[in-house]
Amino acid sequence: MRRRNLAVVLGTVAAHSPLSRADVAGRTGLTRAAVSSLVDELIARGTLTEAATAPGGRVGRPGRALAVSDRGPASLGLEIGVAHLAACVADLRGEPRVWRRVERANAGRPPGQVLAEAAALAAEAEAEAAVQGLHVTGRVLAVPGVVPNAPRGLVEHAPNLGWHGVRPADHWPDSATVPDLENEANLGALAELWHADHTAETFVHVSAEAGIGAALVVGGQLFRGTRGFAGELGHIAVHPDGPPCPCGARGCLEQYAGEAAVLREAGLDATGDPVALLAERATAGDAPTLRALERAGRAMGLVLASAVNLIDPDGLVLGGAYAELAEWLLPAIRTELATRVTVRPWDPEAVRASLLGRRGPVLGAALLTVRRLIADPTRLPAT
Amino acid sequence: MRRRNLAVVLGTVAAHSPLSRADVAGRTGLTRAAVSSLVDELIARGTLTEAATAPGGRVGRPGRALAVSDRGPASLGLEIGVAHLAACVADLRGEPRVWRRVERANAGRPPGQVLAEAAALAAEAEAEAAVQGLHVTGRVLAVPGVVPNAPRGLVEHAPNLGWHGVRPADHWPDSATVPDLENEANLGALAELWHADHTAETFVHVSAEAGIGAALVVGGQLFRGTRGFAGELGHIAVHPDGPPCPCGARGCLEQYAGEAAVLREAGLDATGDPVALLAERATAGDAPTLRALERAGRAMGLVLASAVNLIDPDGLVLGGAYAELAEWLLPAIRTELATRVTVRPWDPEAVRASLLGRRGPVLGAALLTVRRLIADPTRLPAT
Repeated sequence: MRRRNLAVVLGTVAAHSPLSRADVAGRTGLTRAAVSSLVDELIARGTLTEAATAPGGRVGRPGRALAVSDRGPASLGLEIGVAHLAACVADLRGEPRVWRRVERANAGRPPGQVLAEAAALAAEAEAEAAVQGLHVTGRVLAVPGVVPNAPRGLVEHAPNLGWHGVRPADHWPDSATVPDLENEANLGALAELWHADHTAETFVHVSAEAGIGAALVVGGQLFRGTRGFAGELGHIAVHPDGPPCPCGARGCLEQYAGEAAVLREAGLDATGDPVALLAERATAGDAPTLRALERAGRAMGLVLASAVNLIDPDGLVLGGAYAELAEWLLPAIRTELATRVTVRPWDPEAVRASLLGRRGPVLGAALLTVRRLIADPTRLPAT
Repeated sequence: MRRRNLAVVLGTVAAHSPLSRADVAGRTGLTRAAVSSLVDELIARGTLTEAATAPGGRVGRPGRALAVSDRGPASLGLEIGVAHLAACVADLRGEPRVWRRVERANAGRPPGQVLAEAAALAAEAEAEAAVQGLHVTGRVLAVPGVVPNAPRGLVEHAPNLGWHGVRPADHWPDSATVPDLENEANLGALAELWHADHTAETFVHVSAEAGIGAALVVGGQLFRGTRGFAGELGHIAVHPDGPPCPCGARGCLEQYAGEAAVLREAGLDATGDPVALLAERATAGDAPTLRALERAGRAMGLVLASAVNLIDPDGLVLGGAYAELAEWLLPAIRTELATRVTVRPWDPEAVRASLLGRRGPVLGAALLTVRRLIADPTRLPAT
């Protein structure tokens, strides 16, 4: 019960700070004596700070301002992408304090090598966070592959990396800092849910770049499917007899809207950052690029219409690197949705681009630990 | 708290009867005195009976056998199909006691006329149930159309009936017997969940006949979507440039696997019971019929593969009238799933035919009230 009340008090301050102890009692229904004891413990655990002055100077309600700490406990998000590594350290308020991103051609490289470099990037980010008075207490790694519900800690398959049955813990240089694992699309969706300014509680979050994944958020909760494989949007069929896909099927969405397919259709070479290149050519009005993006948007729209017809979400979010191509993809996606979602009303504005874009998955990875700590502050030692 | 305990006791007897009062106390952790008081109330509300002899004759545990009543409170399921009306009365044990089914060409007829006939069929079924000592205390109507989460009581759209914005209560002859509404695929799925002998907790239930609908059951609960429109399987695209569909899109599953499309492909006329006709011709080895069913199965398999890739269920159930065509549809469905679900392991046996078939929706409609009464016996008056 005390654990639950610690979470209630910390969650209340996180959502509404600054608050005085009296404000917290008022909002939670706990007695002021109970709140004081809980607040003292939360301060001891490094999760709350209490300023010397009253919040907002309201008359008749003296009290010092409580806020979630911007020092002390923090969390690390890491990401292994097909062409990059990224790290983010967030404080307990959920604010990102350190960002790192390096380009790396990870596809086809030995997983041990890639994981060692990710661990090195993580150590750099943690060191930079330490300078700001933050110490990382939880780590989550985003991967562009399938992470089963059980056993945890396994990347069952990451086709665009060429990984099969990789267990990051087996390659991690320091057993004390092995991260938890999660699919990047799932983490991008959680970042969207927790960090972005919108109201949809049930949505499909598309995470597109080299591969195309998706995550389903249902009633404010991530829906991972029976075994953790939900959201394989990239291998939904656009055309039954379409081009063969390395997955073994034909006509999968990735064959129309994946980075390689769009570059090919646009007649471009995949050097540097393909999404930035596509955006540059589209901005310049290059006709083959515009046609390729329209074709990709149509294919995404067809598959998203299937998702809408099947699960009836509030909204659709275009995330990942492709958020930067939204200007050219969204019109075709909306056209296709309007054509194919007809049995029910569908608001064209219910599909939109993520404001987080490429930063979504690594931010979600960092926020996952923050959320866990807020939900159970006893995970942190009392000092 | 007493309401909850009444439900616990009734639910325990429903799941494990016959039990003695002592057995119930043992299973629930309630005191024997509490159980006795609760059992007395449940008997007074007509939900339990107590026989004179001990269950199983176990030594040292005297007590009279409690069982859920097979008389008294009962529930009515009704169904309006495109070509039939059906009614079912189930007792509190969930056993169907009255079945009625009549062929009726309901497509395009005035909704008021169809609803009046459904109400007459319901009255007949209730009268027949009364002869068996059953009195109906709740009514649910299954419709082949979209029933929004809000406002309830509205059939927003039933394309194969030609209904738009129909409110059955406006046409029902007796305001005391107006049924609750639910989509037929949803009710078929609930019947499958509650009545069939299988273990899947998360599955897609396809309900096919004139139209093709589906329902999603997630973790043992019906998933209706944000607005109640989840499961529109019939309008998921099989081919982006396929035949036009009355819904306004092209290449929808119904254009490949709906009754009319299969009959056309098989070169058959739609007289009598089209599904029975298809089964008869397929049994006789008629090549065009076999080809048409294989084509329909392939299309269903493609769309179901999309569903598996998107939501990662335990299983898929082929229900409704098409369960009778499973022998010819399932091989093609399984082939397509094996080709298109490749990023994760998929067991071909995870797709199977419903044992309830055409009876699923009306049985589910009856069981819905039974479940509600078991979950809250205070809905019934104490006599």
